Amino acid sequence: MAATPRWLRWLPASEWLSGYTRQDASGDALAALIVTILLVPQGLAYAQLAGMPPVTGLYASMLPLILYGLFASSRALAVGPAALTSLITLSAAGSLARGDSATFMAAAMVLAILSGALLVLMAVLRMGWLTNLLSHPVIVGFISGCGLLIATSQLPHMLGINVAAHDFIGLWQGLLTEWPRWQSTTVVMAGLALACLLLPRWLGTQLQKRTRWRETGKLLGKLGPLVAVALTTLISAAAQLNHHGLAVVGTLPAGLPALTLPSLPLQHWLDLAGPAALLALIGFVESITLAQALAARKRQRIRPNRELMGLGLANVISGLSGAFAVTGSFSRSTVSQDSGARTPLTGILAAAGIALVALCFTRAFFYLPQATLAAIIVVAVLPLVELGELKHLWRFSRADSLAMAATLLGVLTISVQAGLIIGVTLSLALFLWRTSQPHVAEVGRVPGTQHFRNVQRHEVEVSAHVLAMRVDESVWFGNARQLEDLIYDSAMQRPQVRQVIVQCSAINHLDASAVDSLKSLNDRLAHAGVVLNLSEVKGPVMDLLKRTEIPEQLTGQIFLSHHQAMETLAAESP
Amino acid sequence: MAATPRWLRWLPASEWLSGYTRQDASGDALAALIVTILLVPQGLAYAQLAGMPPVTGLYASMLPLILYGLFASSRALAVGPAALTSLITLSAAGSLARGDSATFMAAAMVLAILSGALLVLMAVLRMGWLTNLLSHPVIVGFISGCGLLIATSQLPHMLGINVAAHDFIGLWQGLLTEWPRWQSTTVVMAGLALACLLLPRWLGTQLQKRTRWRETGKLLGKLGPLVAVALTTLISAAAQLNHHGLAVVGTLPAGLPALTLPSLPLQHWLDLAGPAALLALIGFVESITLAQALAARKRQRIRPNRELMGLGLANVISGLSGAFAVTGSFSRSTVSQDSGARTPLTGILAAAGIALVALCFTRAFFYLPQATLAAIIVVAVLPLVELGELKHLWRFSRADSLAMAATLLGVLTISVQAGLIIGVTLSLALFLWRTSQPHVAEVGRVPGTQHFRNVQRHEVEVSAHVLAMRVDESVWFGNARQLEDLIYDSAMQRPQVRQVIVQCSAINHLDASAVDSLKSLNDRLAHAGVVLNLSEVKGPVMDLLKRTEIPEQLTGQIFLSHHQAMETLAAESP
Repeated sequence: MAATPRWLRWLPASEWLSGYTRQDASGDALAALIVTILLVPQGLAYAQLAGMPPVTGLYASMLPLILYGLFASSRALAVGPAALTSLITLSAAGSLARGDSATFMAAAMVLAILSGALLVLMAVLRMGWLTNLLSHPVIVGFISGCGLLIATSQLPHMLGINVAAHDFIGLWQGLLTEWPRWQSTTVVMAGLALACLLLPRWLGTQLQKRTRWRETGKLLGKLGPLVAVALTTLISAAAQLNHHGLAVVGTLPAGLPALTLPSLPLQHWLDLAGPAALLALIGFVESITLAQALAARKRQRIRPNRELMGLGLANVISGLSGAFAVTGSFSRSTVSQDSGARTPLTGILAAAGIALVALCFTRAFFYLPQATLAAIIVVAVLPLVELGELKHLWRFSRADSLAMAATLLGVLTISVQAGLIIGVTLSLALFLWRTSQPHVAEVGRVPGTQHFRNVQRHEVEVSAHVLAMRVDESVWFGNARQLEDLIYDSAMQRPQVRQVIVQCSAINHLDASAVDSLKSLNDRLAHAGVVLNLSEVKGPVMDLLKRTEIPEQLTGQIFLSHHQAMETLAAESP
Repeated sequence: MAATPRWLRWLPASEWLSGYTRQDASGDALAALIVTILLVPQGLAYAQLAGMPPVTGLYASMLPLILYGLFASSRALAVGPAALTSLITLSAAGSLARGDSATFMAAAMVLAILSGALLVLMAVLRMGWLTNLLSHPVIVGFISGCGLLIATSQLPHMLGINVAAHDFIGLWQGLLTEWPRWQSTTVVMAGLALACLLLPRWLGTQLQKRTRWRETGKLLGKLGPLVAVALTTLISAAAQLNHHGLAVVGTLPAGLPALTLPSLPLQHWLDLAGPAALLALIGFVESITLAQALAARKRQRIRPNRELMGLGLANVISGLSGAFAVTGSFSRSTVSQDSGARTPLTGILAAAGIALVALCFTRAFFYLPQATLAAIIVVAVLPLVELGELKHLWRFSRADSLAMAATLLGVLTISVQAGLIIGVTLSLALFLWRTSQPHVAEVGRVPGTQHFRNVQRHEVEVSAHVLAMRVDESVWFGNARQLEDLIYDSAMQRPQVRQVIVQCSAINHLDASAVDSLKSLNDRLAHAGVVLNLSEVKGPVMDLLKRTEIPEQLTGQIFLSHHQAMETLAAESP
């Protein structure tokens, strides 16, 4: 086999295209058809959530899918419009545009382009590790907060009212003060849509549980959106409900998107860089988590840098197509894999399907009620809200539950961006705090063995002249001085102690502050007539110590094993 | 013995006063005399450095010494005006006042009051741990940068010119462009002062090394400032050099300080809170480090919370006396201890000495040249500049030397505050980065033992079906996903692997993200037909795991020892 040319390494499509079979083709085609059917209503709905014209939801479902399919490494991930990225777009573009709709659209496009460019940059600089900044509690808190915010933001559409506020508390205030103006037509249609969404899902679950038609059941559960769209559109058209106060999608311009660069002053591009970075980070974490879960099912491998590249290019092209940011979709990806998708061609075929809809069938959506789209969003996002995890985390660790609660409250009471920043900062601070509070145990010998354990947990033998302490953490500037004082004070509290041994078996690293504290501890103990010894120093830590003056300055010795240290020093003592 | 009343616990003076002897008194009195002699020129000099009227250097040396002596736990620390805190005062008050001298004085007083109040607050809330944020490289870089900046700031006084700039580069530009205006009288007097400072020091070192008069030598070395002040003042007065362009201290108002609250608008108090926090942190780190070193010589103990209280009250009263921030002085503390000080009464007696000077002898300083004070400062701060430490750290660890270099450059090129903030942020980021890059080793059995070591460092036996990996770091959100991928990928690279064992002996803690990644690793491996086992989980970590679903969900087992795991799994394997 000839070596792969360098440029081809960035085009993984070459890998699966070369061995493409007829079986692959039939699987991909069926999956593409089902994904297309799902994607149309979801695209329109997420465009509504993002505050963009409905047709941009279709634009976001064409070129991005093709570029992702060609450049990414996941065989099963379905990208396109999704809830979280649409919410962040609404929030960031809204706060820049302040009501001007042309600026809003341009800002949404710029957000997609910038976040895409950042993802490509992260791929080139191999900076996928940045996503490590998002801890599990912060992600769960963030997604739960966003889910609550998204669901609430769709309620005005389902009640037929207008609420000016975009924040959680403002939305609820608006909903409650506006209750005399709730429209019965809209409420009924929204109820119908909800029924269409929930009934097939319930039926599907029953089929999966109680019958042999498991696959059919699985699929049925996902087809709710199609049923809801078809039924409510038919009723709305037949009764001409748009003349009775029901808000409908209206005219969608037919045709394919043209590629254009959004016109926005340079200052606004700069203003959007921060939210774009957030969008990139969140979109990538969502995609990669999903892609890894899907790949594991088939023992496939995800290459994070290729995912960054694929998702980045998909976002850039989405912005240039006049649409908004995209990411991996949980619902469409699982449906796609379950209905037999084998290669990324599925996504490319689905894009072709959407193009067909955009060219020929846009008139079919004129009477589609906005309330139906809102219901689709609400049903999609509510499972993201995992408030139970808060209780769960509380039982596991106070710090983790605090980080989740702060992120959730930040999203709901301040803003989506603020919530995430609060969460990340707090979780880093809590980690630093915990690492700066190391566990130190005085150790003694388990009788009859060469084994040393914590004197407070075990019945062990200790020597009156030798104080042995085990440090259970790497030593760094956050805990070095504390450890120094702790060991010094322990020695000072027993006037008969002449030797101190620090057992270093759990110390994985030392920094310059640790070395400084070790020197200072050595000097302070020496002034007090106490000798300092070390035992069980790990190889890499010993390599570090050898680059300092400690081996010469240490008043005592460095012992290989703690047992050997105790034997030697107990023999020497008076 | 009756129990100590609660309020007395905050007044440690009760401890040493109750057992006060005649020997104590004679030691303290001699030490106080010598400290007073040192304190007069140093107080005047540091007032000049802080940009304050010379007499405030005396004010800062009265009440603060008394309050510190009554409330702190150190028996030997001499507080008062010092180089670093004076520089920070100059920098922070200068940037607020922008040339207005009344505002400058008020701001310097407010800085002392606020930093003192913050120290008292830290004492009450037991927040001494905040100083752990300052790593050894950051402190060395900060002090070195400040030392260079302080020495440079005194050069205009020694050359008889005015330079408007306060920053390092601006100062040097001013010094060099102004060279035609250098005043020969001032330069000669500065040279004479330098000789008076350096000669006794050199003589003292010679005496200590070559003769039996060690103690005399030590003392002689410290008396340079007194000689310099006496000699240059006499010459300046005799030749009336103030009429020949030599800047002199001039009239010092006689009398004791009155307590007043500085009048500054509330907004300015708020603006000064940030610099005051910095001042509090730096002042405390300097004091506590010094106090611990002094206490260790006599096997005494320092209580950090009492030091916070003592130093805080000293600063508050210094600001109320019309003076500036104070901290522990290295030179005066060692002289005091060496000349026989036994209790904090030394400081209180020295304060009385200063009061005597302020009441009766202020006229004696009229002809004292400012160049002499500048020379005293330069000679005092140059030993603080430890640029060699940069090379030293470079050899020990790149990250530590980077933190020091960034702090040093920040202080010199931006500002004192910026340098410290850059250093702290960078060193935290570098710590987080290192901790997020954990060391993972595949381990195998050392033949004939129950001991398992890294396959890349040792000749060990491994099994084809069992992959054993040791994680050398606590698992947290910064490294959890990386570890998950690393272990998963290692397993996937060997299709014959059926069992994975993670040896957890070096894992000191797990957070919620680690638990999440462990679940995900378990699921992903299960999909691929690989069983996940754990071995040597520490007690506290096992307690945490028991609060999660992992013990039930884990496809494999949790083994007590790694040896036992290998025995069991190797027997099971095909």
